[in-house]
Amino acid sequence: MGIAEVKIFPIETLHDFCARVFMYFGVPESDATQAADVLAAADLRGIDSHGVARMNSYVGLLGEGLINPKPQINLVRSTPSTATVDGDNGMGLVVGPRANQMAIDMAEKAGSGWVSVMNTNHFGIAGFYVLQAVAHDMIGWAMTNSTAIVTPLWGMERMLGTNPIAVAFPGKNEPAIVIDMATCTAAYGKIEIALRKGENIPTGWAIDSQGRVTTQPADVLAGGALLPLGSDRERGGHKGYGLAVMVDLLSGALSGANWGPFAPPFALRQTIPTRSVGKGIGHFFGAMRIDGFIEADAFKSQVDEYIRVFRASKPAPGTGGPLIPGDPEREAERIRRKTGVPLILPVVEELRGISKRTGVPFD
Amino acid sequence: MGIAEVKIFPIETLHDFCARVFMYFGVPESDATQAADVLAAADLRGIDSHGVARMNSYVGLLGEGLINPKPQINLVRSTPSTATVDGDNGMGLVVGPRANQMAIDMAEKAGSGWVSVMNTNHFGIAGFYVLQAVAHDMIGWAMTNSTAIVTPLWGMERMLGTNPIAVAFPGKNEPAIVIDMATCTAAYGKIEIALRKGENIPTGWAIDSQGRVTTQPADVLAGGALLPLGSDRERGGHKGYGLAVMVDLLSGALSGANWGPFAPPFALRQTIPTRSVGKGIGHFFGAMRIDGFIEADAFKSQVDEYIRVFRASKPAPGTGGPLIPGDPEREAERIRRKTGVPLILPVVEELRGISKRTGVPFD
Repeated sequence: MGIAEVKIFPIETLHDFCARVFMYFGVPESDATQAADVLAAADLRGIDSHGVARMNSYVGLLGEGLINPKPQINLVRSTPSTATVDGDNGMGLVVGPRANQMAIDMAEKAGSGWVSVMNTNHFGIAGFYVLQAVAHDMIGWAMTNSTAIVTPLWGMERMLGTNPIAVAFPGKNEPAIVIDMATCTAAYGKIEIALRKGENIPTGWAIDSQGRVTTQPADVLAGGALLPLGSDRERGGHKGYGLAVMVDLLSGALSGANWGPFAPPFALRQTIPTRSVGKGIGHFFGAMRIDGFIEADAFKSQVDEYIRVFRASKPAPGTGGPLIPGDPEREAERIRRKTGVPLILPVVEELRGISKRTGVPFD
Repeated sequence: MGIAEVKIFPIETLHDFCARVFMYFGVPESDATQAADVLAAADLRGIDSHGVARMNSYVGLLGEGLINPKPQINLVRSTPSTATVDGDNGMGLVVGPRANQMAIDMAEKAGSGWVSVMNTNHFGIAGFYVLQAVAHDMIGWAMTNSTAIVTPLWGMERMLGTNPIAVAFPGKNEPAIVIDMATCTAAYGKIEIALRKGENIPTGWAIDSQGRVTTQPADVLAGGALLPLGSDRERGGHKGYGLAVMVDLLSGALSGANWGPFAPPFALRQTIPTRSVGKGIGHFFGAMRIDGFIEADAFKSQVDEYIRVFRASKPAPGTGGPLIPGDPEREAERIRRKTGVPLILPVVEELRGISKRTGVPFD
């Protein structure tokens, strides 16, 4: 995209705007700030589809009363290292951080903590949560299910969300290793970008409404679906499908949330599933004390060495060599903290619309 | 392969042979039986590369005194829900089941149990372990690192093992959902099969020693490497790479085992890494009580419904429709329990050689 097509904003501006908009819809100040923190993390880390670009969806759902701005988040069941939380239909951006903190607190006492969450909504980037655990010298885990857009291998219907998995490991002098990935081949945002640019998409990303492999992004919107990581049988599409099912069962079925094709829609424009098998969507958080396994300093030194060894490994022809998981997001954050967050004009227009609707000044 | 190229054996014959061979090398009877159970599970479930086909490697290492036949398996550190185990350089087929049982026992008391294992060796199929947890109404997890053969995305060196992940969820009347997958695109066994048949391999599976994508299976053996799940950047190769790193850190760095390119070889013919950063290879096991989250019966009913919904989903053109993770292995087991396990002649020859060496009768 050319420079003309974006406008740059300091992260503080975006953060404050989001927090104030949430408060306009009745979200208490501390929750509103927390929710804005999660969105800002996405915008800083370059995951543009999960930051302020989603405000319009949140506002739509809050405005219609479809999300509870003041949830009473409840512990439904627990053991020393496991728990289920009912998010009371709150924003995932509020319920998620609370449930994740419970996992961290349980890990402090029991060595590990695992929290499955029902009756919640989209929680932003999974990477945000695992970095909270890392700050406590823990290994962090976060997953969520979401509105169906991905087909199982050998299927042609939208049966699974993009169901991301994040896991993070702290380093000592090196940064944390942060794995944060959707379990489909390519993010939905990449389909939208290709559509906007009038470009084809690679084979392996998507099928059309007849179940045929397509290179036309418009086919996905017209009843097609994304393919699981691995794309086809020959290249391991059953593996991406299996991972998506794992996330769905841990987040959805285990908590009592909806799963698979029954996950409720994320935005007003989406179709509501004909059937409900639980409450809201589901998340799954985990935290493991490193010193529940090994001296934390020894582990973090190994992570440092791991990073150095992999960085020093020979590059494939025409590449800069292997990255460390989390590198692209760290680099984006480094730049964007200094120079601000570029927003494409359609997003800027949406935020202006929200500003007009709520009276919260924008730009 | 034609029928002429295989010989069929009842599973009991193979199981007894393996157990007796292990005992010949000084493995105590109960451990030898346990190890044979794990191998038999692979042969029954159709994962031919991980069953008796590996006996020659085990025998080679036991015969050279490179594996300890009578390990003193030790708890190194623990909290209520986490532990590290030193496998005393025993067979993974013996250390693995013991450590996995510790995870299950911890879960009984603390809700979940997580065990990282160092100083161990190859443990067979990950799917074996997670089914043990399922039998206790638990969700089972199993991972292991292994000898490097996979390249990171944008790399060209062998830096990671095939590093499998297995996770299983019990059903009520339906069978368990069992995800059991290497984190590379295609198993090494498929390269060997293509080589034997003189066939090309698909792009996306492997690179040659110069880091170029190859369709020649011989290139992999001649210093090439397998590609992580997702194959290339466009199709999510960074995701398979990230998952392989996750398995490596949980199994290797967290336990105090070797990781990455330093994982010791699995067979005598393989090169020994120039450096050691820990002891042996590493595994990682987990077990979570379902009723630590939700009533077990309610969860298992949801798993049944999940299976039915996914089986009823529309097939892609030219396919039989989506499978449930674990279907192919269950189908293989059903058939092989009745009709026996087909072994290719080179494996039969190896087993005959072992029989001659040990005096344990084979066929």
